[in-house]
Amino acid sequence: MSITIFVPRESGADEPRVAASPDSVKKLTGLGCSVLVERGAGEMSRISDEEYDKAGAKIAAASDIRKADVVLCVRRPDSRLSQIKKGAAILAIMDPFEADKELAAMAKAGVSAFAMELMPRITRAQVMDVLSSQANLAGYQAVIDAAHLYDRALPMMMTAAGTVPAAKAFVMGAGVAGLQAIATARRLGAAVTATDVRAAAGEQVQSLGAKFIMTDALKDASGEGGYARELTAEERKAQSELVASHIAKQDIVITTALIPGRPAPKLVTTAMIESMRPGAVIIDLAVERGGNVEGAKPDEVVTIGGVRVAGYLNMPGKIAASASLLYAKNLLAFLETMIDKEAGKLSIDRDDELVKATLLTHDGAIVHDRFGGSAPAK
Amino acid sequence: MSITIFVPRESGADEPRVAASPDSVKKLTGLGCSVLVERGAGEMSRISDEEYDKAGAKIAAASDIRKADVVLCVRRPDSRLSQIKKGAAILAIMDPFEADKELAAMAKAGVSAFAMELMPRITRAQVMDVLSSQANLAGYQAVIDAAHLYDRALPMMMTAAGTVPAAKAFVMGAGVAGLQAIATARRLGAAVTATDVRAAAGEQVQSLGAKFIMTDALKDASGEGGYARELTAEERKAQSELVASHIAKQDIVITTALIPGRPAPKLVTTAMIESMRPGAVIIDLAVERGGNVEGAKPDEVVTIGGVRVAGYLNMPGKIAASASLLYAKNLLAFLETMIDKEAGKLSIDRDDELVKATLLTHDGAIVHDRFGGSAPAK
Repeated sequence: MSITIFVPRESGADEPRVAASPDSVKKLTGLGCSVLVERGAGEMSRISDEEYDKAGAKIAAASDIRKADVVLCVRRPDSRLSQIKKGAAILAIMDPFEADKELAAMAKAGVSAFAMELMPRITRAQVMDVLSSQANLAGYQAVIDAAHLYDRALPMMMTAAGTVPAAKAFVMGAGVAGLQAIATARRLGAAVTATDVRAAAGEQVQSLGAKFIMTDALKDASGEGGYARELTAEERKAQSELVASHIAKQDIVITTALIPGRPAPKLVTTAMIESMRPGAVIIDLAVERGGNVEGAKPDEVVTIGGVRVAGYLNMPGKIAASASLLYAKNLLAFLETMIDKEAGKLSIDRDDELVKATLLTHDGAIVHDRFGGSAPAK
Repeated sequence: MSITIFVPRESGADEPRVAASPDSVKKLTGLGCSVLVERGAGEMSRISDEEYDKAGAKIAAASDIRKADVVLCVRRPDSRLSQIKKGAAILAIMDPFEADKELAAMAKAGVSAFAMELMPRITRAQVMDVLSSQANLAGYQAVIDAAHLYDRALPMMMTAAGTVPAAKAFVMGAGVAGLQAIATARRLGAAVTATDVRAAAGEQVQSLGAKFIMTDALKDASGEGGYARELTAEERKAQSELVASHIAKQDIVITTALIPGRPAPKLVTTAMIESMRPGAVIIDLAVERGGNVEGAKPDEVVTIGGVRVAGYLNMPGKIAASASLLYAKNLLAFLETMIDKEAGKLSIDRDDELVKATLLTHDGAIVHDRFGGSAPAK
């Protein structure tokens, strides 16, 4: 017996990433799995069918998803759920918050749905952390997009005809995305400042050569798992005053503030945008969760008082070829822990803390306690 | 008496730059000139009418061009020539090659037309060198555009989920634009190689931390004024073989090869493009002169065998706010040499080598020897 893994072609322009790479295919076939990759699945990530084939995969039709014991996805495969056999495992970015109906459907279908984004932030799971791997690239791409929209140069340039001053970039939220945005803006020669409500972020910001901006009123708002907690009304007011005075002088602002399972906090108001000089650029990386910037619209560049505000729904997808390689590695690392090579089958240990943290549905029921499931099995 | 200077609003999206900045206006009014800036002239370069006004300019109507003793332009103002008074001077990027009809019209109109791009490359004129100031920004923008189109990261990234390799960038032509492209690609962490037919470029390329690629068959093809001469058939063949083997391994190619007054040399063939891996990006900075890349189309991104080839007609215009400041400084520096402050009028010294090199038409005739004019006045 062997485990059959299926890798679907995702939804094209909306989701150009793919959940397997030639590397991950090679490792999985090495573990005795049979890997089926849907024709064209890697096209938008610059991986050809030939490359998958060479790595040991079989190029398959969409309908071959029926054969899968494991389905590796980028997004939750709602529309194909009826084709997936009972008992199969699905690994994906499940986007489980406010998705009760979809979770119920997966439970009913009898699949074991793993939400990769719920992977705990512990050392053992670092290599499986899809939020980090994708946010890192999103932070890079945010600066590239900002530089592309901006109609001045980022670096200081000393020329025979005078000096072009360095652009001032401000990064709000110094998590994985924010730190990579800081590093990339620094690479391009911008003068970079950053803020975060978690006190620990200050040192990291400074280690990248940027200046940390924070109000005394807010000592620390660290929450669970390295994320920030929501601020109190007073804290929000102090933060807002600080931002308002700082932002007026900025050329480029990149916002990355997210609170897990909650709408993104509004950090930049229309009045703040209007205080910036025409030509400034704002990139809102939180637009998928409602946005950190007032007036930001998904997948649009909005102009407010001469300032361009851009928010893309799928930033890692804009850099899909790199994003898919890292994502595939994340999935592989997790899947490997569940492959029983001897028996040639998947073995889900419900006592494993990684499984506990990510498994949404199993054996016909919602099992995750955050989504109304019963307590995890002993 | 005083000199009246007019700064028109250029043609918008096609030409977002403007020929004066608040700084240059302040200097010119300080020299006793009266400066008229057409309403909205600076809008696309992020300079408001208020800023010009504060610097001492008068915001003027389009028709006020009739009052001008000097017209400062980005592009040749063909459509407004009839409104410009006889004897007035026009400073612009005149694009005089293959523009016989337009030159004749300027001669007939009795204007003194100065082609800023013909400024000699001598120390005294460095600050007036519009080709350098604008090419510098074009080289920067070429890399930003390439990074934006490219669906992988440029820098090497070492993450928990594995390493993203650095992109390989190849810059063809290491003049002002090429050198800035090299510097910017290096900033972003790409592995950069470059080639040039002028032997002197090798050292400059290496000083920026890039690898210089050149065939032994081609020792040196330096031409006049720091530019390259045209290659012989044999040299072209050796160069082409070198490029063909190198380019197949590149992720990003930026071409910047220009020969003054001649079509751009074709450096990259369709076969070479097809040898590159899907997802690679080529930016052709010579597309205004026919392009260095086969199949490149002005202001389009063409996909050839999965490789995207982009060529923009006005690359400095994509970074107009910075480009206009430097361009305005270039014009100011040249204009200053011709202002007779005592007499309050323009004084064109036809023996000055800067005037000799740039003056196309004067007193009703074409006077530049490269464009069929009589020899310069003694």
